[in-house]
Amino acid sequence: MDTKPLRRQEREKLEVPTLVHLARNGTVTEEMAAVSERERLPIGRIVEEIAAGTLIVPANVHHAGLAPIGIGRSAGCKVNANIGSSPLCAEVGGEIEKLRVALQYGADTVMDLSSGGDIPAIRKALLETCPVPLGTVPVYEAVARAADIDGLTGDDFIDVIRSHAEQGVDFVTVHCGLLRDHVPLARRRKTGIVSRGGSLVAQWMIHHGRENPLYERFDDILAISRAHDLTLSLGDGLRPGCLADASDAAQFAELEVLGDLCRRARRAEVQVMIEGPGHVPFDQIAMNVAREHEVCEGAPFYVLGPIVTDIAPGYDHITSAIGATLAAFSGASMLCYVTPSEHLGLPDLEDVRAGVVAYRIAAHAADVALGRPGARDRDDALSEARYRFDWEKVFSLSLDADRARERLRGSGEDFCDLDTDYCSMCGPRFCAMKLNRMLDEKDEAHK
Amino acid sequence: MDTKPLRRQEREKLEVPTLVHLARNGTVTEEMAAVSERERLPIGRIVEEIAAGTLIVPANVHHAGLAPIGIGRSAGCKVNANIGSSPLCAEVGGEIEKLRVALQYGADTVMDLSSGGDIPAIRKALLETCPVPLGTVPVYEAVARAADIDGLTGDDFIDVIRSHAEQGVDFVTVHCGLLRDHVPLARRRKTGIVSRGGSLVAQWMIHHGRENPLYERFDDILAISRAHDLTLSLGDGLRPGCLADASDAAQFAELEVLGDLCRRARRAEVQVMIEGPGHVPFDQIAMNVAREHEVCEGAPFYVLGPIVTDIAPGYDHITSAIGATLAAFSGASMLCYVTPSEHLGLPDLEDVRAGVVAYRIAAHAADVALGRPGARDRDDALSEARYRFDWEKVFSLSLDADRARERLRGSGEDFCDLDTDYCSMCGPRFCAMKLNRMLDEKDEAHK
Repeated sequence: MDTKPLRRQEREKLEVPTLVHLARNGTVTEEMAAVSERERLPIGRIVEEIAAGTLIVPANVHHAGLAPIGIGRSAGCKVNANIGSSPLCAEVGGEIEKLRVALQYGADTVMDLSSGGDIPAIRKALLETCPVPLGTVPVYEAVARAADIDGLTGDDFIDVIRSHAEQGVDFVTVHCGLLRDHVPLARRRKTGIVSRGGSLVAQWMIHHGRENPLYERFDDILAISRAHDLTLSLGDGLRPGCLADASDAAQFAELEVLGDLCRRARRAEVQVMIEGPGHVPFDQIAMNVAREHEVCEGAPFYVLGPIVTDIAPGYDHITSAIGATLAAFSGASMLCYVTPSEHLGLPDLEDVRAGVVAYRIAAHAADVALGRPGARDRDDALSEARYRFDWEKVFSLSLDADRARERLRGSGEDFCDLDTDYCSMCGPRFCAMKLNRMLDEKDEAHK
Repeated sequence: MDTKPLRRQEREKLEVPTLVHLARNGTVTEEMAAVSERERLPIGRIVEEIAAGTLIVPANVHHAGLAPIGIGRSAGCKVNANIGSSPLCAEVGGEIEKLRVALQYGADTVMDLSSGGDIPAIRKALLETCPVPLGTVPVYEAVARAADIDGLTGDDFIDVIRSHAEQGVDFVTVHCGLLRDHVPLARRRKTGIVSRGGSLVAQWMIHHGRENPLYERFDDILAISRAHDLTLSLGDGLRPGCLADASDAAQFAELEVLGDLCRRARRAEVQVMIEGPGHVPFDQIAMNVAREHEVCEGAPFYVLGPIVTDIAPGYDHITSAIGATLAAFSGASMLCYVTPSEHLGLPDLEDVRAGVVAYRIAAHAADVALGRPGARDRDDALSEARYRFDWEKVFSLSLDADRARERLRGSGEDFCDLDTDYCSMCGPRFCAMKLNRMLDEKDEAHK
C-alpha cells in the first residue's frame, strides 16, 4: 500500500468505482486515507472494514470537493442534519442558509429532503456548496413530479434515483424493505406508518395491489449505486411513530428484509447502512441497536433520535438527544437530528442550530463514554479554561460559542466584563472556582 | 390502620413528629396517605419504606398547605428546581415569579438557594406560596450573614439550620461529609471543589485547621431535624466539576462518610437523602447510582444532572437531561434541574421554564422505561390525538402547551388554522399521518 491513494477524478473513470470493490481489491483511495487520518485508525483497518461493510464512506464519484467521513462502530459517532423545502416553503436561498448553519454547528452529513419547489435546482445548489456527504430521499421527488402518487410507475421511482446518483448525491434513503405483507401489521398500530416515504410506498402498493417497486427493482437500484458509488441507506418505512408502537412486529418484519437487502448490497459491492427508529422507550434502545447489529451483520446503524417520550412537542430535540446518546453508546454509528419543530412544522434556521448542537452533544457524550481516542480532550481543555476564568478560551472550545457568550453577557446588567473571575450565578463571594483558586494561591505561598 | 390519618396540625404538637418515628410505630399520617394515593402504592408499603428510610416524604411540621410527595425508588422520579437570589440580583418578587414558573411546568420540589438580599424574607414569602416541599442550603445564609467566612463559629452554622427548620423548610442540604482529610484529594483535580457549600466549608477548615463543624455537630443537626421533621439532604461537597474529575477518590471518600451519616440519621429517626454528581461520563452513571445505593443502604439518591459533556455551555439543560434520564433509569429518585444558564449566570424565568421541562422529560422517560404504573398513559393519549390531528388535545397533553402552540403557529404564514390535517413540515400531500387516515377510511368503506 505504498502507492499514492487513488483520487476521486481517477475513481470516476472506473467501471466499478465503489469503495467496497476497491477495498476488496486492496486499492487505497483518497477517501480511505482521509478517514484513516480523521479517525486515528490504521489505513489497513479502514480498508478491511470497508471491504466487510462495517464501515462506510459515502462519496459519490461525481461529488467534487467532498471531505469524506467514515460511518461505523470503529469511527466517531456522526450527526446528520435534515434540511429541504416543503410544498409550503420552497426557496433555494433558504436551503443554502440552512446548510450553512448546519455546517457551522458541526453536522457531519446533510440530507436534502426537499419536497416542494424546483427540487433538482435546490439539490444542485446544495451539492455545489456542500463539503460533507449529501443525502436525499428520491421518492419525495418522484411523488412531487407526478400528478398523483398512484400514477407513478416502477420506472419513475428508478429514474429519480438514477438522476440523483448522476448528480453526485452521496447517499439515498430507499424504502425497499416495506413489503405488502407488512402493511396489515402496521394498521394495528396507534399511529400507523409515520415515515413519509414509507406511507407513500404503502399507498402505492394498496392502490395497485402490487409489491413495493423499490423492493422488486432492487437490482436496478444496486446497478445504479455500483456505477456511481451511491451509498444506500435502507429506510425504515415502518419505524414506530409513538412509544406504544415501538419494537413491534411491523418494525422487526421490515428489519429482517433490510438484513437480506444489506447482504445483497454487499454482494454487489455497494455501500449500505440501515435506518432505525424513531420513537422508542429508553429501556428498549440498546436492544434495538443490538438487534440491527445482528440481523444486518454489523452494517452501520443510522437512527432518527430515538425520541424517548411523546409528551414534549416543541422539545423533541431534547427527547430525542436523550435516546440518541444511548443509541450511540449502544453502537449506532450515525444520528439523524430532530429539531424543536418536529411534529409541528418545517425547521427554520434556529431549529437547525438547536438540532445540530443537541446532536453534537449526544454524539460527543457517546464518544467520550466509549473511550474513543482523544474524545475527552476538548472537555478537559474547556474545564481547565473554566477553572482559570479564561472566558474566551471557554467560548472557543464551546459547541456554540455565540450562545455561551450571549448567556454570560445577558446574565446581569453590571456583568459584561470578561475580566471578572466569577459570574452572576454566585457572585464574587460564593464562587467555588474562585475560592479554589484562593486556596491554590495559599498553597503556592506556603511552598 | 383503620383510624384516620394523623393531620399535620396534630403532628406539629408531638415531641417526635418525624414520619420515620411515626411509621416505625405504625402511625399513618395524612402525608403517607397522600403519597400512597399519588404513587398508586398500598399504604402498608409506604409506611414500611418510610420506616426503613428507602422512601422519604419531606414535610416540615410547620409547612402549612404542603401537598406532600414521596421520593424513593418505588415512587415516580421527582424533579427539583433551584431558584434563589444572588448578591448581584436579589428581589422577593422575582423569586416568587420563578417559583410560579417552576410550579407551572411541573417541579415537584423547589430549592431556595438565595445568597443575596434579605434571605429570610425571600424564604418566608416562598414558603407561604409554595405547595411543594421547599429546600434550602443554610450555609449560604450563614456566610451571607457574616463579614467573612473565617469568622463563623460552629454555633453560627447550627443556628441558621435551626432557623430554617423553625420557619418550615422541608429539606436542607448540609455538607457534613466533606472532611479535612478529603481536601488534599480534591486539590489534585482539574477543577477542585465546585460545590459552593463544599468550597465554603473547605475554606473554613483550612483557615481554622479544624474539622468540618457540620460533621462535628451532626448530632445537633439531627436533634433539630428530629424536632421539626426537617429532612436532611446530605450534600456532596466533593462532586466532580468536570468529566475528568468524576468518580475519583475525593468523591467516593465523601460518599463513605455520607453512608455513615445516613445510618446515624436513620437511628435518630430523621428522614435523609443523599446528593450526587454533577459531571459524569455517560458510561459511569449507572455505576455511580449503584454505588450510592450500596453505600447508603437504599437511601434515596438526589442527583444534579449529571452533565455528560463539558463542551456545551449554554446547553447544559440538555447535556444534563441526558445524564439525568440514565441516572433515573438506574435508580436515582430525584433529579435537580440544570438550566441553560448553568456555568454562565443566574437563571431567569425562561431558564427556569427550560430547565423544568427538560427535567420533566428526563424523569418521565425514566418512569416509562421502568414501567411505573400508568407512566405511558399520557404518551399514548397524546399520540392518539396526534394521529387524529386533534391539535388542542395534543397541546393540552404536552409538557409545554404554549411552546407547542407557538411552534405550530409560527411554522408558516398561511398556517395558523388548527383545523388543517397536516403541518408545514410535510404539507398536505406528504403527511404520513394524513395518508394513514385515508387508508383507514378506505378500510372502513370496504367493511
